[in-house]
Amino acid sequence: GEKVDDGEKTVRVPVVRLKIGEVAEASSVVVLPVCKDEREVMEAPFECRSEGGFGVVVAEKGWERWVVLPGWEPVLGLRKGGVVVSFKDAKVLPWNANRTYKEEPILVVADRSRREVGADDGFYLVPHGDGLKVERGNALKELGVNEGLGTVLLVVRPPREDDDDQLSDDDWD
Amino acid sequence: GEKVDDGEKTVRVPVVRLKIGEVAEASSVVVLPVCKDEREVMEAPFECRSEGGFGVVVAEKGWERWVVLPGWEPVLGLRKGGVVVSFKDAKVLPWNANRTYKEEPILVVADRSRREVGADDGFYLVPHGDGLKVERGNALKELGVNEGLGTVLLVVRPPREDDDDQLSDDDWD
Repeated sequence: GEKVDDGEKTVRVPVVRLKIGEVAEASSVVVLPVCKDEREVMEAPFECRSEGGFGVVVAEKGWERWVVLPGWEPVLGLRKGGVVVSFKDAKVLPWNANRTYKEEPILVVADRSRREVGADDGFYLVPHGDGLKVERGNALKELGVNEGLGTVLLVVRPPREDDDDQLSDDDWD
Repeated sequence: GEKVDDGEKTVRVPVVRLKIGEVAEASSVVVLPVCKDEREVMEAPFECRSEGGFGVVVAEKGWERWVVLPGWEPVLGLRKGGVVVSFKDAKVLPWNANRTYKEEPILVVADRSRREVGADDGFYLVPHGDGLKVERGNALKELGVNEGLGTVLLVVRPPREDDDDQLSDDDWD
């Protein structure tokens, strides 16, 4: 599924659970820099190209923290500006997740090349206190905020510890 | 197969062809820094740990060039010192590869925590002119060389362009 209904309106950001043993074509794995705060989001390498037949990732500058994700569609199209922010729980999301989900760590994949708050139904990575959170475009516009740190493309949930029912679709609460 | 016979003796370094669409358990993917020359091999981050449920890779320092490999056994055991060197062809290997193979680009995975030339049948990454090559331990010992840049764990060949016969085992020439 690509959409989740939070009871209020349809959320347009895909929320995907990473599966243990998830198969990924070696040719479509995506490697993205991982950030913890606003400074890192601004500093992380903006462009990463793939080099040669082995898919060596060449970033425009060095970075310490990386994550490998399967080549999910919203991420595959990301040529420049891709960044991942890791959060200890899903309370940073502006929609109501169920309790389990809310207490899980998540990764938010954002596109820093799309910072302008455009579509009302878009979601944006924005500074929040000392950290970061995800906010709705319409909420930002109401506050007169026209720019975020990037458009949110995808939210990744961790693999289940007990990942027997990989084909189950009840991740969509 | 884990060994290749070069007509002279059994080579103990696995030579593996990366397969297009090769499936890798997300939990067993390995991310390693990629180097081009001796200076980079010395400078590349020595230790990369995996953090949290998403397998975020945290290197001890920033690096620009990375490669994702399936969790092949010799590489999975590599906690510290792992490094990958990319070569434009396989002429840097000290055994006779067939013609096609010799003209293919390869990746050499080495363990920098094992630099001492020990077993005669080991292979080592060593400086060679402005670049690097792979040399047999016994050849190094004959030259009085007791230390390389690292023990070679694995040689990776690129995916076939026409990768229809993924189950074929004729990679072993």
